Amino acid sequence: MEKPYVLGLDMGGTNSVLGIVDARGHVIARTSIKTQEYKEIQQYVDALYNAAIQIIEPVGGIELFRGIGAGAPNGNFYTGNIEHAPNLPWKGIVPFSKLMTEKFGLPCSITNDANAAAMGEMTYGAAKGMKNFIMITLGTGVGSGIVVDGKVVYGHDGFAGELGHTVAVRSETARICGCGGKGHLEAYASATGVARTAKEILQTTKKKSLLRDLDIDHITSKDVYDAAEQGDEVAKEIFDFTGTILGQKLADFIAFSAPEAIIMFGGLTKSGHWILDPVVKAMNDNVMAIWKDKVKVMFSDLKEADAAVLGASALAWEE
Amino acid sequence: MEKPYVLGLDMGGTNSVLGIVDARGHVIARTSIKTQEYKEIQQYVDALYNAAIQIIEPVGGIELFRGIGAGAPNGNFYTGNIEHAPNLPWKGIVPFSKLMTEKFGLPCSITNDANAAAMGEMTYGAAKGMKNFIMITLGTGVGSGIVVDGKVVYGHDGFAGELGHTVAVRSETARICGCGGKGHLEAYASATGVARTAKEILQTTKKKSLLRDLDIDHITSKDVYDAAEQGDEVAKEIFDFTGTILGQKLADFIAFSAPEAIIMFGGLTKSGHWILDPVVKAMNDNVMAIWKDKVKVMFSDLKEADAAVLGASALAWEE
Repeated sequence: MEKPYVLGLDMGGTNSVLGIVDARGHVIARTSIKTQEYKEIQQYVDALYNAAIQIIEPVGGIELFRGIGAGAPNGNFYTGNIEHAPNLPWKGIVPFSKLMTEKFGLPCSITNDANAAAMGEMTYGAAKGMKNFIMITLGTGVGSGIVVDGKVVYGHDGFAGELGHTVAVRSETARICGCGGKGHLEAYASATGVARTAKEILQTTKKKSLLRDLDIDHITSKDVYDAAEQGDEVAKEIFDFTGTILGQKLADFIAFSAPEAIIMFGGLTKSGHWILDPVVKAMNDNVMAIWKDKVKVMFSDLKEADAAVLGASALAWEE
Repeated sequence: MEKPYVLGLDMGGTNSVLGIVDARGHVIARTSIKTQEYKEIQQYVDALYNAAIQIIEPVGGIELFRGIGAGAPNGNFYTGNIEHAPNLPWKGIVPFSKLMTEKFGLPCSITNDANAAAMGEMTYGAAKGMKNFIMITLGTGVGSGIVVDGKVVYGHDGFAGELGHTVAVRSETARICGCGGKGHLEAYASATGVARTAKEILQTTKKKSLLRDLDIDHITSKDVYDAAEQGDEVAKEIFDFTGTILGQKLADFIAFSAPEAIIMFGGLTKSGHWILDPVVKAMNDNVMAIWKDKVKVMFSDLKEADAAVLGASALAWEE
């Protein structure tokens, strides 16, 4: 019997969203549970199953499902485990795929959020038909999923693609990253990085800015965008600084895997051309001659509400 | 009929060495021609064939050969072309594989020198059995071949793996690379880079050193090694500086593809622990916690005289 559906799970530190996805990439039903309410992983899996059944029965039952794909922090594709995820309630190594398969009776694959996003773009989104591209997620952190020859790069241990934790600024005064590293891309090109840049510029200069009307400790990338739209020079400077650092690093990434495109996703992309223009300029100013003006830089074209579920679900078609 | 042999061609700007290789990785015969003597590519291919026949006939004739693998500057695996190689006599785009196949009657694959070296390590050398590793060649330049999931990464256009041209030093005073880029790894971690570092330290400090007895414009990495072996502090400082920069970049490369090992090859590796120790220290000081002390750093164990021919020949087994 043909199985027309898969389940995609977007597991976040706060919410876990589970969607039913068809082969054309439509999320035809969804449900969610609160991740933090389940202190034991088995309770979480049980609750997820109970929620899932409510949307599965109306479409015809679980025998119409091919499998489950899950995007989760520190999800390891090779082992099916979630390993030492700092923002989840379950400590140590959690055999997530195994528990899901036991409960649902379906194969379950897992990977981290950024790799899932790359799968989603390749299966349903901007990277359809591409065999070599790099996905960069610009949210609270900076994640990445690298696709080489049509496959996500997992590496020797399953943890490849941590481009947010490569060094963007190598100096004594470089920022400390959330991971403890120094000068990492994530400390500059994330939403948090933009907020830090805003605070630094406002505190160390006397430049006039609309941003001075806001609480300096709670400026968001959305605030900076709004100010840029109103012609605010400091806001533009923040995006130029951020985009230049990101573009310089993209040039290094290109030298690694020679991708056809770099696809960006996440909160910061809502800043549109304010962030895109300096990224593209710095990238082309820094790549080798053979790649100048040849690598596309684009935003994801998946709907934000669906993207994470779609990305996770894409894993399940490969099972 | 079983075909027990392949041909491996190491095409350099000066010499082209062609060897007969068996399945166990023995170079059982070799010949060479002068690359620069042939102004037309067809003349070069004809001369190579005439030289080849002299070593092919004694082992039983060309019908015992499976194919040809060639490592050449700017060799493109996808197209079989040599594209705009600055140090070869033939300009523009040269359809090398096609011409070789026409002349020899054998399939011919081509790639650049560093990718060929990676193939050689995987087929016959230190990376036997590994599916994810990075090859770094430290010679006049810095080349790289990246292996992911058992395959060399060629990327969208065939030119992936230019890690020598990622930025190691991002500052106003960073060195200009041979390619025109600024602060590239190649400008620091190559044999040429070591010579530049030696000159800089000798010119900008008054430190005592055995190296002061030499012509400052012609100090080689071998000279620096000899001085280090005699306890020279400046020589040690040169290796520490070079190794630290290389190790910092290796940490970034690990975040990309999570390799099992990094394998180094080329002239600079003759400096042994003087270069290896600072590389390993800087790498482990800079990687994320999940990779600390987990990624092997090793030297190639292929004989230097054979390595390039072996690496090229490894391509031919895949045909």
